[in-house]
Amino acid sequence: MSVKLALVVRTDLAMGKGKIAAQVAHAAVAAALHGLGSAEFAAWLHDGQQKVVLRVSDSEGLQKVCDDAASAGLHVEVVHDAGRTQVLPGTVTCCAIGPASAAEVDRVTGSLPLL
Amino acid sequence: MSVKLALVVRTDLAMGKGKIAAQVAHAAVAAALHGLGSAEFAAWLHDGQQKVVLRVSDSEGLQKVCDDAASAGLHVEVVHDAGRTQVLPGTVTCCAIGPASAAEVDRVTGSLPLL
Repeated sequence: MSVKLALVVRTDLAMGKGKIAAQVAHAAVAAALHGLGSAEFAAWLHDGQQKVVLRVSDSEGLQKVCDDAASAGLHVEVVHDAGRTQVLPGTVTCCAIGPASAAEVDRVTGSLPLL
Repeated sequence: MSVKLALVVRTDLAMGKGKIAAQVAHAAVAAALHGLGSAEFAAWLHDGQQKVVLRVSDSEGLQKVCDDAASAGLHVEVVHDAGRTQVLPGTVTCCAIGPASAAEVDRVTGSLPLL
């Protein structure tokens, strides 16, 4: 089974690439820690931690993909930034979906463009 | 104790921001999994997973900070990209240092600029 982690980032916040990387890393670590002990997590780790970084244009787009993923039974981690730099405290910047079967993740995120 | 994870990225590879985010996330997940069960990891998680994303201009710069960190007794995770996109297989793209005491991490990475 191919397993992947999707990371979905808002592009309307004017975050720099270092800020984006930190937010995505936060989401990925949270998703990995949540997955500890599961067969899907073990498969994901074994296969090299496949990740795909996607984009949405605003908070509504992020909310929609999170809702769709949760409805499909996929684990979702939403990152609320602490707001020390670049964005206001509590701003939702990105989310992680999975790690889960690539087919299931693609069903929810497949229409989103790469960041 | 303030605990942080430093993520150091090469800027000479012309990676896009999504690619950078995926590489940094890979390093952060590896560092987190290695730290599981340690007091420093617990403190890092409890304090909100403090991360800083820094840059070096080339592979020699990355090697130097990795060597300095290892010499200082800090845990280092080096990411070798699978090379499916943008860079050649096996290319070293970034590293994670820590999570560890912010003072110790700063001693090694403090001169590096933010990405």
